[in-house]
Amino acid sequence: MLNPADAEFAARLGALGLEAVPAGAAYLEEPRGRLAGVAGLLVRPRTVEEVAALLRACSAARVGVVPYGGGTGLVGGQVLTEGSAPVTLSLERMAALRAVDPVGNVAIVEAGMTLQAVQEAAAEVGRVFPLTLASQGSARIGGCLATNAGGVNVLRYGNARDLCLGLEAVLADGTILRGLKRLRKDNTGYDLRGLLVGSEGTLGVITAASLRLFPRPAAEGTAMLAVASPAAALELLALAEARMAGCVSAFELIHRQGLAFLEEVMPKVRQPFVTRREWSVLIEVGLPEGIDPQVALAGLFEAGAKRGLVCDGVIAQGAAQRAAFWRLRESLPEANRRIGSISSHDISVPLSDLPAFIDRAGPALAALGDMRVNCFGHVGDGNLHYNVFPAKGRSRAEYEHLRGPIKACVHGIVDAFGGSVSAEHGVGRIKRADLERYADPGKLAAMRAIKAALDPLGILNPGAVIG
Amino acid sequence: MLNPADAEFAARLGALGLEAVPAGAAYLEEPRGRLAGVAGLLVRPRTVEEVAALLRACSAARVGVVPYGGGTGLVGGQVLTEGSAPVTLSLERMAALRAVDPVGNVAIVEAGMTLQAVQEAAAEVGRVFPLTLASQGSARIGGCLATNAGGVNVLRYGNARDLCLGLEAVLADGTILRGLKRLRKDNTGYDLRGLLVGSEGTLGVITAASLRLFPRPAAEGTAMLAVASPAAALELLALAEARMAGCVSAFELIHRQGLAFLEEVMPKVRQPFVTRREWSVLIEVGLPEGIDPQVALAGLFEAGAKRGLVCDGVIAQGAAQRAAFWRLRESLPEANRRIGSISSHDISVPLSDLPAFIDRAGPALAALGDMRVNCFGHVGDGNLHYNVFPAKGRSRAEYEHLRGPIKACVHGIVDAFGGSVSAEHGVGRIKRADLERYADPGKLAAMRAIKAALDPLGILNPGAVIG
Repeated sequence: MLNPADAEFAARLGALGLEAVPAGAAYLEEPRGRLAGVAGLLVRPRTVEEVAALLRACSAARVGVVPYGGGTGLVGGQVLTEGSAPVTLSLERMAALRAVDPVGNVAIVEAGMTLQAVQEAAAEVGRVFPLTLASQGSARIGGCLATNAGGVNVLRYGNARDLCLGLEAVLADGTILRGLKRLRKDNTGYDLRGLLVGSEGTLGVITAASLRLFPRPAAEGTAMLAVASPAAALELLALAEARMAGCVSAFELIHRQGLAFLEEVMPKVRQPFVTRREWSVLIEVGLPEGIDPQVALAGLFEAGAKRGLVCDGVIAQGAAQRAAFWRLRESLPEANRRIGSISSHDISVPLSDLPAFIDRAGPALAALGDMRVNCFGHVGDGNLHYNVFPAKGRSRAEYEHLRGPIKACVHGIVDAFGGSVSAEHGVGRIKRADLERYADPGKLAAMRAIKAALDPLGILNPGAVIG
Repeated sequence: MLNPADAEFAARLGALGLEAVPAGAAYLEEPRGRLAGVAGLLVRPRTVEEVAALLRACSAARVGVVPYGGGTGLVGGQVLTEGSAPVTLSLERMAALRAVDPVGNVAIVEAGMTLQAVQEAAAEVGRVFPLTLASQGSARIGGCLATNAGGVNVLRYGNARDLCLGLEAVLADGTILRGLKRLRKDNTGYDLRGLLVGSEGTLGVITAASLRLFPRPAAEGTAMLAVASPAAALELLALAEARMAGCVSAFELIHRQGLAFLEEVMPKVRQPFVTRREWSVLIEVGLPEGIDPQVALAGLFEAGAKRGLVCDGVIAQGAAQRAAFWRLRESLPEANRRIGSISSHDISVPLSDLPAFIDRAGPALAALGDMRVNCFGHVGDGNLHYNVFPAKGRSRAEYEHLRGPIKACVHGIVDAFGGSVSAEHGVGRIKRADLERYADPGKLAAMRAIKAALDPLGILNPGAVIG
């Protein structure tokens, strides 16, 4: 039903002062190499008015638009895989820091700034923008917001939606939403900010955002603690939160398999324990003045050991060791990539069901075949990256026929626990069928009604999230 | 365009097993006594299925529905003031605590539970539900969510939307949304939760919610500090947040006028300072183990005094004095009510503009006439209750002609600072014209499109928020 973004359309855009060039290969790929985009036009506007003019033109001509951030998304939201050639709308030229206000703890940033640039802009005025992802050097803040990105600090600071006070965005018909409010509280009307954040470019194009900044905690500390089990990890988290009054910034679960993968393919990454433990957690705290974080973490270790939750541990002595712990954590996805998973799952379950999920999923997968599971992630949020790999010495190809059954097995158990089959990566194109299968029918109906209301021609990111 | 909820319609509901009685006076009032509701039918369903059946019947008959919580809203969202007699849909019989999970830090509550009952259910399992309002004994959680209620702990814990993980709700056509997820992270589709929260019953009826609970901080402390100015209050806040690593739970600004009103009409409320100071703040901190809150607050006082921000202060010695400070704070609205305001304003401005707002609004109002201003509120959120009163010895009636100009003056200045004319109370019916006047046209267009998509017949809370 949509028309192609062809040479004639490029000429029409040119007449509007919008430069359109053929979209190069870099814009038609995604990091896991599973999808290839239909080649169309690339437009890189410099202002919100140019975005509006582009969307008006695309609406008039019924041409599809794929909003494009840093291209780091893991669910194919950034590449159109079938249908008429689209316009890829890259925000890379809208990358200005419009304002930063350390008194109000707000930054106003354009969508094309990388996440890292936003973090640096905050740091320059002595503040923290806490969204932290492995891909932060290339992920752009517009994409982080469009996908409601998560990462390691959600436990304390929330996800991208929680960090966003307001948006400037353009709707499908070219209407500009000017909502760059710097307010902590504003109850004048519907939460369009929250609706656009996480809509993956299907309801509007985010061009700028006002973001929450935070004071840097007076003192920070990090520890790796070996725990008896996932249930022990949860009890330790509860203990930590009770003792630390919400000052736990990160609480990451690591499984022995992940450390074994590191040793196998990234042997230079230093590992904390001499004896490799089955389960460990990486905990980070950011505390008020008057407490030494090493003392606080030592106190947590002792209290955890007394309850039989913790059996070993290393508290980072200084910044270098803290960085080393985080390097280890951040190397886990890269080691996974080098080993090569059969199937990866970005899932969440209610916190209290997390041990039961792990207990049930392991045997269910073992019944399907001989495989290795690396289960790690943001346990403080109930969010696991539950990734399945070939047995040692065997290849992914041997398991190709199991990919579907593995995914159905994991997602089925997640669903039985009332969990989510996409905790932080979004739906994109790769998880559309999962959304249809597992989402509440009432929710799907409401989503379709909203999509039809805000994008009646279906030009925004066609084929992503919802049909 | 809507049909009345008359005896014939009551009979039709009766045939569906839904008891409908004439709505009594208690359901047709609002706390400020400014609006009177059109009398129609009262229906008090016991299950979400009954709510769905009611909305299907109202849709079929084109009868308006006013969702009703505790009736404590301050903007007339709970009373239909013109048009055909509506069904008042009270959630008071859906007041069960469905589940409470201290490990997962989640409670699942029905909409009719009072906010205080929710707080108590959390406290029973050693957790905190931090939403705190003066009206918490009668406000129901469904209404708190529908209006995205704020209160004194937003600074640390966020507003009602931030405290809600998922919803069960019914759309205008009777579709049930079953979204009582207990998940911290779930990126499967649009944020309907965030959209319904704060939509004031115009997009759907909330019947239950899953709510975030928190550990109780290891130690809490409270102080009243006299500050040199609103700007000094802001600097003190920044200092407190930097020293306390985000453990500041409340930071309330109090003006001398509010203390004078207390003395005038509630002389039994104990006041902390012998000499009444122009500006003071009430600060509460909830800290990790290992810090004495009194020591932390004393340290803040000293650091503030050194910078010339603080000139006097009382740190609460024990629970009784902490409670006394809060009693003072919570008595301010009641004292205001007894004095009788000409015009009240629930506004917010960017934090860094707050002193400039106060500097500009005072003289602008003084130019309109001889009045007293009590400016107080949640300064940590940039949210002020900026209330205007008759000069001493004069009556409200003398100022009736000034009500419009006063409101226009205050809201105009708020708007010039990019602020909000409804920070936490919502729009309801009283602020509909303000929304039309001050909101971004793009936002209004998107809101209308969403309203038309989810409630095409306009039966949900007709006349509230948006037409």
